[in-house]
Amino acid sequence: MSPLKINYPKGQRFSRDLNNRSNQKQSKKPFNYSNRGMSLEEDINLTNKQYLADNLAVIHKKPTPIQVVKVDYPKRSAAKITEAYYRRSSTTDYNGVYRGYHLDFEAKETKNKTSFPLNNFHEHQIEHMKKTSEHGGICFALISFSSLNKIFLIHSDFLFHWWDQQFEKHGRKSIPLKEIEKRNHLLSYSYNPRIPYLEVVDQLIEQIEILD
Amino acid sequence: MSPLKINYPKGQRFSRDLNNRSNQKQSKKPFNYSNRGMSLEEDINLTNKQYLADNLAVIHKKPTPIQVVKVDYPKRSAAKITEAYYRRSSTTDYNGVYRGYHLDFEAKETKNKTSFPLNNFHEHQIEHMKKTSEHGGICFALISFSSLNKIFLIHSDFLFHWWDQQFEKHGRKSIPLKEIEKRNHLLSYSYNPRIPYLEVVDQLIEQIEILD
Repeated sequence: MSPLKINYPKGQRFSRDLNNRSNQKQSKKPFNYSNRGMSLEEDINLTNKQYLADNLAVIHKKPTPIQVVKVDYPKRSAAKITEAYYRRSSTTDYNGVYRGYHLDFEAKETKNKTSFPLNNFHEHQIEHMKKTSEHGGICFALISFSSLNKIFLIHSDFLFHWWDQQFEKHGRKSIPLKEIEKRNHLLSYSYNPRIPYLEVVDQLIEQIEILD
Repeated sequence: MSPLKINYPKGQRFSRDLNNRSNQKQSKKPFNYSNRGMSLEEDINLTNKQYLADNLAVIHKKPTPIQVVKVDYPKRSAAKITEAYYRRSSTTDYNGVYRGYHLDFEAKETKNKTSFPLNNFHEHQIEHMKKTSEHGGICFALISFSSLNKIFLIHSDFLFHWWDQQFEKHGRKSIPLKEIEKRNHLLSYSYNPRIPYLEVVDQLIEQIEILD
């Protein structure tokens, strides 16, 4: 299985030129969340902000879904929510548009050092990514091994393969780091953008357009 | 100005086939929110749910952004948010993927009968749609004239044109209904999907692919 094989709807063709490719320079440093006191989410948000400022892509994190139960409307001030609960999202956290493509991804962190536990994902997130891929979106996950200071961009086909095998007889409940390293992209860290993941997306798009 | 002219990034080309087109049948009935007790948002959510069930498109409403200030963690029950405030979204409400295209849109309602007041939109929503169009997304607004039981799909280029003219000398603060009727698409109402807007998106895509 190639990590770059992307399943598009039957007969769906893509043809876009590469003039619009980003030219992101960065210094190659390892990630170090422990020292920097930043979360993966904050880094991705800063990255997306920079991509927007550079007019490279429009990608946002979706707000956390919250079920509002009670709201006070005090005079002369903003409505105050006094009872609410977190709900589970039915989609992934991030999406947007880049070079005409719909991007859709999730970010996950693990402290494990040798494998990534699949229970970090929810069934509905995988289902959402499968549907989105089927309709021509580019889906992936940014997976951080925080103890190793390593972040990988994992293509959805690789993720789906590993997700599905866990339900088979003797299926593994985690993806070995070795497999991730062999078949996916280690992301470099730079000051700005923090996690230049669009460089890897460019490679995915090249593969789509070669197959086209 | 043609309502179907779509500005894509310089050199960006699209080429997709039409085999995947939806075949949505519906009875042509006028909208009537007053009688049905349904909101525009509820109807769009039901429509998107149906499109997802029919495996036609993956489109979701983004959750309302809420700033959480205080959370209680009671024993043996779910975290309870006890102080929070609504924040203004920096994007549009709906987005997703259809036939390989990134869709991005906003829904607005007016009780006016002769024009649509532009102050229903916020500057940042228009800016977001301009950026998204520039990167190859298909942007539009679903505008409901609730007193007339009419919903239009308004292409972003038409909206941008009217948005921008309001800042010119003698600029109008609203879009006359006559102009909307002349240059945009009146949506039909059906039981399921409620507001079959993808039929019009199919026309927009056809135009993109003809220009290609």
